Amino acid sequence: MSQKQATKLHLIDTDIHERAQYKDLLPYLEQPYKRYITDNHWLQEKHMPYTQPSVAGVDRADARVPDGRPAGSDLSFMQEQLLDPIGHDVGILTGALDPSPSSMHGWYEMATALASAYNDWQIDTWLDQDERLYGSVHIAAQDPQSAVKEIERVGSHPKMVQVLLPIDDQLWGEPFYHPIFEAAERHELMIGMHHNEPPVYYGKWPRYFIEWHTLIPTAHMNIVTNMVFNGVFEKFPRLKLMMIEGGFTHMPFLMRKMDQQYKDLRHEVPWLKRKPSDVIREHMCFTTQPLEEMTKKEFMQVMEQMGSDEIVSFSTDYPHWDYDSPFDALPPGLDEDLKRKLFSENAKAFYPKLKHLRKER
Amino acid sequence: MSQKQATKLHLIDTDIHERAQYKDLLPYLEQPYKRYITDNHWLQEKHMPYTQPSVAGVDRADARVPDGRPAGSDLSFMQEQLLDPIGHDVGILTGALDPSPSSMHGWYEMATALASAYNDWQIDTWLDQDERLYGSVHIAAQDPQSAVKEIERVGSHPKMVQVLLPIDDQLWGEPFYHPIFEAAERHELMIGMHHNEPPVYYGKWPRYFIEWHTLIPTAHMNIVTNMVFNGVFEKFPRLKLMMIEGGFTHMPFLMRKMDQQYKDLRHEVPWLKRKPSDVIREHMCFTTQPLEEMTKKEFMQVMEQMGSDEIVSFSTDYPHWDYDSPFDALPPGLDEDLKRKLFSENAKAFYPKLKHLRKER
Repeated sequence: MSQKQATKLHLIDTDIHERAQYKDLLPYLEQPYKRYITDNHWLQEKHMPYTQPSVAGVDRADARVPDGRPAGSDLSFMQEQLLDPIGHDVGILTGALDPSPSSMHGWYEMATALASAYNDWQIDTWLDQDERLYGSVHIAAQDPQSAVKEIERVGSHPKMVQVLLPIDDQLWGEPFYHPIFEAAERHELMIGMHHNEPPVYYGKWPRYFIEWHTLIPTAHMNIVTNMVFNGVFEKFPRLKLMMIEGGFTHMPFLMRKMDQQYKDLRHEVPWLKRKPSDVIREHMCFTTQPLEEMTKKEFMQVMEQMGSDEIVSFSTDYPHWDYDSPFDALPPGLDEDLKRKLFSENAKAFYPKLKHLRKER
Repeated sequence: MSQKQATKLHLIDTDIHERAQYKDLLPYLEQPYKRYITDNHWLQEKHMPYTQPSVAGVDRADARVPDGRPAGSDLSFMQEQLLDPIGHDVGILTGALDPSPSSMHGWYEMATALASAYNDWQIDTWLDQDERLYGSVHIAAQDPQSAVKEIERVGSHPKMVQVLLPIDDQLWGEPFYHPIFEAAERHELMIGMHHNEPPVYYGKWPRYFIEWHTLIPTAHMNIVTNMVFNGVFEKFPRLKLMMIEGGFTHMPFLMRKMDQQYKDLRHEVPWLKRKPSDVIREHMCFTTQPLEEMTKKEFMQVMEQMGSDEIVSFSTDYPHWDYDSPFDALPPGLDEDLKRKLFSENAKAFYPKLKHLRKER
């Protein structure tokens, strides 16, 4: 991030984590929820019982705000460390209130209140303060009725580009959740999906952080499979999924596998009229981070196997420990045209609310 | 399977499912276990609450034994339908007692008794009856002490080539299970791993069979990651894993991912001294079925991305519904040398107890 390119980098960064602390949300919380935090010291469920990758936990050590607050808590510091030196055109905020309100178990009213407070805080503190920043609607998706109300409440904000759903113990393709997709579609919001808890197979946690971090894409595969085979995109043809922070190099395998299974077992999912890989290419996009180090040849082989170079979007994942810089994360030597797609064109084509940017150049 | 090749196909088929019914095991079961089946009508836990891919459940409809028994129950019929027309050199039996004794919850003594009875039945009914057939030692791996005893009891049978572990809710890399690997290594037995239950993320079952069947390789990825990062192969340097019925096309992704994670997070697993992909190439082999339809170019790209064409072994997965025939499952036009590796050389190099076959040609 130290060097600046001579020519301007047009970047839509599809994954930036701003972070709220409970005290930030208090002004936006009503009673009784507020006093459970101030008086009863309520905490969300905790997770990540592992070694941490850095002294700042899962964040870059140097991203901690100078006043001691956690990384991602302060707009000015984010501008100074990320947005200004890189020269972002757009940064899409994906939040960090661990776990997501949508992942909370029990007491959904509290999850709903937290999601609303978070959205108001996000708009006031970030979206309305920096024209480059766009946001994600947080909801308590376990309770689709309340989630729909929250989408109605803030979803038409011009800088809210997606509804955020965690990848965790809920299979969002189930019809129970479809009202959320209906509301999102109505507001020209896409769905951003981001893993939350580690992939827990059969109730067993991996023994080490390195295991769960390796396996994050398998949780993404699980939900991609679920969404496609449950016919969500047949029912909501304008809906798209941004798969966030899971990378994309697992997709050649999954697309080939799903196509084969569709050929063999389509009797089970008669609502699905097209090859899964076609549905994926039309309805999904994948953020790049964490990019494995690849040669240009290896990278292009993956693009070829995915059958498209228009469903991948660059993301830094700032301020996480394994942040990718747009200046050195991609393999050297990629064609300029492809880089434009990865850095901005694909994201612009993906989000209806970034449509106005399409005309700019 | 109808056509026979002009030149003899030398085939080591690394995944054939012979099937026991409880009544087959009764002569090998002691009391009180026997009478729980005969008198109390005890059943193992059931699974697969989905549509079935064929009228014979997960088996080929035409593989049902003419006398009405389920597919895989009868040696003569297997010889007639599979071994003779294809002309197998070797078939490795991987069993079908659903679920595996190692996957049973509670009452491990019964699981242990069933595993022992199964092994005796397997030796008497299959291994000692057809020189082409080799077998897998079944154990109740939840109870490593009993499992080690069973390996001691039947592991030195010259036709037992591996110890079978299910891929399910147990993470076999945990030190608790290492006595099993120590015993296997001592008997020149490899470890065969085969998924058992569907991949269940966070306790949630996929909604459809097509989802869980698509996701089977993610359960394989989970256990490969666990075994490598927990240092099993550093501790047992002669141990190898045959990953059965999960295919191999997911491995390019996983190897690249694991190498990257090892680079970033190796402080967490200091016992691991080499790149995960090197460990995998040295200590694992993958059976082919279910092969996705691929062109030669696509197939060779996957081999190239795995960095080896010596860690994949052909399997038919007879008598399952998605059986692969050695005559048409591989992409057309593969080099003869590669086909020899896939059909027999790689399996011969993998199993110490197939060493005597290496000299034959």
